[in-house]
This record gives sequence, C-alpha cells and structure tokens, in this order.
Amino acid sequence: MPGGGRIQHAGLARKVVPADAAAAHVRPGDTVGMSGFTGAGYPKAVPEALARRISSAHAAGEPFRVNVWTGASTAPELDGVLAAADGVDLRLPYQSDPVTRQKINAGEMDYLDVHLSHVAQLAWEGFLGPLDVAVVEVSGITPDGYLVPSSSLGNNKTWLDRADRIVLEVNSWQSADLEGMHDVYYGTALPPGRRPIPLTAPGDRIGIPYLRCPLDKVVAVVETAAPDRNTTLAPPDETSRRISGHLLEFLEHEVARGRLPADLLPLQSGVGNVANAVLADLGASRFQGLSAFTEVIQDGMLDLLRSGTVAIASATAFSLGPQAAAEFNAAAAEFRDRIVLRPQEMSNHPELVRRLGVLAMNGMIEADIYGNVNSTHLMGSRIQNGIGGSGDFARNAYLSFFLSPSTAKGGAISAILPMVSHIDHTEHDVHVLVTEQGLADLRGLPPRKRARAVIAHCAHPDYRPLLEDYLERADRGAYGRHTPHLLGEALSWHTRFLETGTMLPG
Amino acid sequence: MPGGGRIQHAGLARKVVPADAAAAHVRPGDTVGMSGFTGAGYPKAVPEALARRISSAHAAGEPFRVNVWTGASTAPELDGVLAAADGVDLRLPYQSDPVTRQKINAGEMDYLDVHLSHVAQLAWEGFLGPLDVAVVEVSGITPDGYLVPSSSLGNNKTWLDRADRIVLEVNSWQSADLEGMHDVYYGTALPPGRRPIPLTAPGDRIGIPYLRCPLDKVVAVVETAAPDRNTTLAPPDETSRRISGHLLEFLEHEVARGRLPADLLPLQSGVGNVANAVLADLGASRFQGLSAFTEVIQDGMLDLLRSGTVAIASATAFSLGPQAAAEFNAAAAEFRDRIVLRPQEMSNHPELVRRLGVLAMNGMIEADIYGNVNSTHLMGSRIQNGIGGSGDFARNAYLSFFLSPSTAKGGAISAILPMVSHIDHTEHDVHVLVTEQGLADLRGLPPRKRARAVIAHCAHPDYRPLLEDYLERADRGAYGRHTPHLLGEALSWHTRFLETGTMLPG
Repeated sequence: MPGGGRIQHAGLARKVVPADAAAAHVRPGDTVGMSGFTGAGYPKAVPEALARRISSAHAAGEPFRVNVWTGASTAPELDGVLAAADGVDLRLPYQSDPVTRQKINAGEMDYLDVHLSHVAQLAWEGFLGPLDVAVVEVSGITPDGYLVPSSSLGNNKTWLDRADRIVLEVNSWQSADLEGMHDVYYGTALPPGRRPIPLTAPGDRIGIPYLRCPLDKVVAVVETAAPDRNTTLAPPDETSRRISGHLLEFLEHEVARGRLPADLLPLQSGVGNVANAVLADLGASRFQGLSAFTEVIQDGMLDLLRSGTVAIASATAFSLGPQAAAEFNAAAAEFRDRIVLRPQEMSNHPELVRRLGVLAMNGMIEADIYGNVNSTHLMGSRIQNGIGGSGDFARNAYLSFFLSPSTAKGGAISAILPMVSHIDHTEHDVHVLVTEQGLADLRGLPPRKRARAVIAHCAHPDYRPLLEDYLERADRGAYGRHTPHLLGEALSWHTRFLETGTMLPG
Repeated sequence: MPGGGRIQHAGLARKVVPADAAAAHVRPGDTVGMSGFTGAGYPKAVPEALARRISSAHAAGEPFRVNVWTGASTAPELDGVLAAADGVDLRLPYQSDPVTRQKINAGEMDYLDVHLSHVAQLAWEGFLGPLDVAVVEVSGITPDGYLVPSSSLGNNKTWLDRADRIVLEVNSWQSADLEGMHDVYYGTALPPGRRPIPLTAPGDRIGIPYLRCPLDKVVAVVETAAPDRNTTLAPPDETSRRISGHLLEFLEHEVARGRLPADLLPLQSGVGNVANAVLADLGASRFQGLSAFTEVIQDGMLDLLRSGTVAIASATAFSLGPQAAAEFNAAAAEFRDRIVLRPQEMSNHPELVRRLGVLAMNGMIEADIYGNVNSTHLMGSRIQNGIGGSGDFARNAYLSFFLSPSTAKGGAISAILPMVSHIDHTEHDVHVLVTEQGLADLRGLPPRKRARAVIAHCAHPDYRPLLEDYLERADRGAYGRHTPHLLGEALSWHTRFLETGTMLPG
C-alpha cells in the first residue's frame, strides 16, 4: 500500500499525485492555509513545488503571488522558498524565517501579526476573504477518511473546514503512534452560538483524536517521508541558567508563602534557550507532578515527562531537535497518555488560560522601566518574528513572566530601557520581569515603584546608573509624576544605537 | 423600623451607629475596600466621617493614611474628601476624581491601574496584603441577613468575603425594587479550582440576587438616605453625532454583508458624551431587540430598554444623571426582568466577553497611525482616569472600537499621532478607530496599510498632511519598513505641545 500503509481510505489513495501536480491546484492570488507550527507538521513537498511554479511564472513575466496563512513558524521548505520566490503577498500569523523577515522589513511582503488564538476566529469572521486552498500535512488517513494529525495541529481544523480545495501531504516519517495523541474539539462556533468549553484540567480530552475532512474537497494527496526541520538548541549558557535560577527561586518562594500550590499551576513556556534552561532547571528541582498548558513541546519538556517532573502536557505542536525527534518517534506510544495536542485556538484560548490559571513564561526583546514589554520589533520598526501566543497567555495568565538577558549584542543593547520602542504587552499585563541580574516582582506596584524595582533588579550594571538618572530627572521634570517620562529623551537609547552602534553614551 | 424598614435582620439592626462611630473602625494603615462604581452605590457617610478623623489626626500631628480599593470611580464624598485630607496612600483601580488625580500626578498618592476584571482575583491572590475593612452600601438587609445590593455591585462580594471587619451603609434613597435585579455568582475560585462559568447569554442568571454577609464580621451599620451623585451629560454635540453616525453605518454594513447578525452581538459601551450619542442614535435606528453586556447602564440605555431597541442589559452598575435616577427609582420594577447587575469580575470576565462575542466600544485619549491606543495618560506621564474595563472588553471582544473626536483643546491636540505617548491597547487588539472625520476598519491590514487608513479616515484635516509626511519619510528612512518610525521624531508632537501649547508646528 502506498505511504507505508498510511493512506487507508481507498478514495483518497486514488488521489495520490506528485507534488508538482498538487501544487497546480494553487492559482495566482489564492489564499492558502498551510499546516505547520514551530517547525513541526508543515507540508514538506507542495510548498517547494509551488515555489517552482511561481518562479517559472515570474520568469515568463507573469504575476504569481499568494497569501499564506499558517499555524505559526514553519521551515525553509515553506516560508523560505516561497519568500525567496517573491511568491507571498500577505503572511499571517507568527513567522521566524530569515528570508521572510527580510522581505517584510524591506516593505516587499505584508505581514499580519495577530494573536495565535485569534487566527481561527479571524478566518471564520469573513473579512479576510475566502480561503482557497488548504495544504495540510497529516501522519495518516483512516479507512473512514478521518485524518490522523501530524506533529502539530495549529489551525488545520479551520483550514480543512474553510478551504474550497484541500491538498493533503501524508508524511510517513511521522510516528504512527501519534494516533490517539490529539484532541480536536469541534464545539467551537461564531457568536452568538458559543458554549462553555468543557475543559478544566490540562489533560482533559474534549474532542476526537482525528481531523474531519470533507472528502469531496480533496483535490490531491501527496506522499512524503521527510523530517520536521528544527535545529538543536545549544545547552543553556550561564546567562540563561541565571535567569532560570531567579525564576525557580521565585516559584519556590510563592509556594512557601502559600500563594501557589506545591505542584504549581499549569506552565506555559516559550521556545528558545532561556525557556530550555527553565525546563532543565525544573528537572533538577524538587518540583514533581507538574502540568503544562502550553503551545509547544520542546526537547526539555520530553525530559520532564520522562522524569515525572511534569505529569501531563497540553500543547498544539512539537518543536524538537533532530535527536529528540528521533527518540520521540521511536517511543511515541509511551507519551500518548501524557501529551495532548490541540488546535491552537484551544491551546491558547483565553477562556482556558484564565480558568486554568496558567503561569506564562515568555521571552521578550525589551522592557521598559514601567513594565511595558516589546516582543516583536527591533528599534520600533523592524519586525523580528511576531507576537505568537505571548499575548494569549500573558493577558489571561495567573502570573505572566517575561524573561531576557539584560543586554544583547555584546552589551551594545540594553533590554531594559526608559521607554520601549514598541509595545505588545502593556504595564497592565506584565507581572514579573527576569534577567540574569535578577527578578522584579511588579505585582501591586504603582509605576514609580515598578521603575525602581526594574532598574535595581533587572538592568545590567553598565546601564543601571543611566536608568536611575533618567528616572530621577523624569520625576522632577515630567508633565506628571504618575509615570514620569521625558518624551524628548525617552527613545534616545534606540536612536543612539542606530547612530553609533551602541546604547551606551560615547 | 429604622431605615424605612430596610434593615430587617434584628441582629444587624442593633448594630446601627452614626457614621463617625462606624469610621472609628478604620485604623491608620488599613486597607479599606469600598463599594462604588461610576458614581453609583458608593458609601455616602462613612468616607466623609473617615476623612474628618484623618484630618483631625493630621491636625494633631499624627500620621493617618489608608489604602482605598473600590469597584471603579466613586464621587467627591468618597475619593474627593479622602484625597483632600491627604488620607490615601494607595488607590485602586479606576478613578475619575479631580482631587485624587491631582494628588497622583503630584506624586503624592500611589495609584494602581489594573483591569477591572482582575481586581477580585488580585485581592484573593494575597500579595496585595490583607483587606482590613469593607465599607459597602446596600439598599436593604433581609430577615436572614442577606444583603440587597445597591445601584452597583462592583467588587462588593469580594470585599465582604475578604475583609476582617465590615461596615454596611443602608441607603433608603435607593429603590426598594432593586431587590431581584442582581445576580451574584458564587462559583468563582482560585485556580486550580475554577470551573466553566455557566453563562451563555447576557440575561442569564447564574447566581443569587443577594450578597452573602458573614454577620460576625459586621462591626457597624449606618443608615443613609442620599442620592448617587452623577451629573447629567450634555445632549450629544455635532462631533459626537458624527462619530456615532460612522459607527452605526459600519454596523449596518456588517449586517448587510452577513458578518453580524441583524440583532448584532452584545454591546459594551463606555461612559461619556460619545457613548451617549451612540445610544441615542441606536434608539433612532432600525435596530431592534439588541442586548448589552457592559459595565454600566447610562441614561441612554434606559431609553433603549424602554423603547425595545435593547431587550436585555447586563452590567455591574448604573451611572445615571439626577433626572434619570429619579425616573428609574420611581419605576425600577419595570426593569427588573430586563436588567441584570453582576459583580464586575463577571460583567467584565474575559471568558464571558469572548464567549458572547461582545462589540466593545470605548473612548480613548489618543491613537497612533498604526492603531495603538492610549486610554490613560496625557503626554505620556499624567494619568487621566485609568484603563477601567476597556482592556477587559477590547482584548477579548469580537470587535473592538475606539472612539474619539479627532482633536482636543480647540484643535491644539491631535488625537491621531505618529506614535502614542502611552499604550493601553496594542495594535493586536484594536479593530476599528472612529473619529468625527470617519472610520478606519483596521481588520486584516498590515501596519503601513493601517497607517494609510487611519490618516485618511480619522485624522483631522489640519493634521492629515503632517501625518502623511511623517509616514512617507518614515517609510523611506526607518530602520525597517514593517512599522516605519522615525524614533527621534515619533513623540515630537507631544513635546511640541508641552513647549508651545499646540501640536501644530509654528
């Protein structure tokens, strides 16, 4: 049987075609909903075939661009090749591809940076226009034509339901034991038809383990056997370990004070070196039987599940390095009762994040002394990746932590500033800031006290006196003393960096 | 019987004392949770007695300050007198009192500006410290010792549950027919004990019509017969009518396109002249059988309930001018099945706002060309009132609208700016901006297209060419073209105003 027996539905098996034939179903100007979330579960063959079509069209002088909607970031085989072919008109939501980023910041590609939990709703609301084609990777197709999801769920349910035409990629590299690990909730609706989501614990299963697929919309099925493409994170460095150390000390302190249960509350953690250090340190801590209600299962989370530090993890995707992915594929069945993958509208849903009381830990680009956080822009203008799920979690979390080294570029950039150059998380939604210098607990503090805490605990010593000086002069000279700012100077650290290559004065 | 028969519980009737005696239960350094929300249902006598105590103490050279937590804004008899007595150390959350505002901006009073839906949770989390005294106005006490709430519910449930000592004010001015109008949900908990909130329509009743009161904590009961203090809003001016006109045209357009139901979705509307104009225009429109899931019932909402334009309204408080209040008190029974007053943690709850698909309409101080909104600060430093519930609604709304005249101070201030001086609602959460100039539908637009729409539709003609010029130069000279900004110039409109008295160049 084709695809290593992965395509068990006869009608769909008959639709198997090469990737180039499948890509021919995408027309110039189409909006295409692709699977993929943090480098997992994205289609491996059709986007590259589409990029070749687009390049051929361009070579012939014909216009050919599409709008690309995904779950979150994908990989060079999707975002990279389509951007390099100048094939993308508008991209949403989160992305982390260097070519895409360059095109966006050159003004050559439109990018819509929306909360990940909002994307499905946006697609249904209608004003974004129709979804012409869905290109979705799955790990198998059942005899009844249900789809066994792949290593991410993302917005696949919505793409399949909304698209006029469906292209499936069946990837036999994905573990067959993924079957049963997903929980696809079909109780969503547009208002006024919404009902309470019946989930009260991270491990609850409230849906079905398959994606429904309107079979008459499937125009092509493509077989692949290709790995998800993620690089292995470096082992945590000293800076990350220090950040993590401050965070764990705080959690232990809150437990000791009776403000958090001994098994904490469900953890959400972003992706990257700092998040990895936190997971590693949790594994070495006394915490046991924790839970995660998060977006992504990283390498470190698998370790915590193995050791029992984490009892159950809910997410929408994996994001594993090659070795961890190989290990997982070899032993996926072990994890089937302890990992639940959900659509991202559920993994990040405000109702659920609020109800569960999630402890949200996300990275940031910069924070200001008053606790406003920039997660998306360099120097106010240049997009880095996007807000991702950080707003979904921070806004409704029980506690929201933002973590970053206190400096970047060898000390030329301070992550703690008089005023941030872009705001994604306001002072109202930021509870705790952590750098390798220390932790500022901003809960219950009015702005000037927040500023003193942030400067004292989070700023790098090279920048601390400059921030103290700014705050002192602002407190004397500002238009008001609630949130004292000198507006003529508030963004001068950024302009100094752009002019001199460092935020430090000459 | 004392209090016009309002105190039907014998044990509590025996605790009736003058306001000065009740105020003696508040000690220096105490944290006091007061009732009151948008000028309704605040205690009328004890805060003034407390202010006299504080002034006497200060005259005798003794320190005496307290922390004051409320529902939202109150009145001169509470915030005004306590601030004037220099009696407040920290105030939370929303306030709109001129004396309080002056003290905060002079750096003489701490102010914590938190989302209104978060206050109850914050009080329970524990890190704000204990709540020593609750001072809560009610409209009556049942024979069993349940409290009939007053014209606002706010955080009263939480204050009564959390406080060590309780002082009740029983206000016989409030209509006896308020009994039965409230819905106090007692199913809240701290995580991990939270369950879905079983509300699926604005009029659902999921609790009891009374406040529970631990009778052993009641240290004093005070009788009052004093009106809520709100001024009548002026009739809508031409600017407000134009804003409202653009908004209604948009709603009709969305219905015509099939993107909103004919009876819309539950409306939330802020307080003030523009909101009043919207309500008046809704009354004159073809819309019928609407619902409201909002914070406050203003004069205009009563008119809509009378006319049938609005079938049911959920809120946490009234905010009525003297004449509307008198009319309501004379006919409250008529409204009992069509108005539900809830604790503010329910009226503003993210789970409910999201589920119901609220259409959130709030005022603002300023917006920038990219759709970031400032609701709280003048020129970046001076607090005006606070974020109130605007974040609760905007962040989880189906559609979030921000409304403002395009200029203030006779044209010296533009409400549309290159960059706002403070951000309370980020680009990710602002869907539609409306001024008297027009409406910018920002849904689905990337930053540069948002900027062009905001400038073209919302900016005042005096400022439009300046904004166009800024955008054009930024697009050429910025560090990135995703969100082009010239950081050295982005806040220069504010500094120009501070230096010259106008944002228009000389």
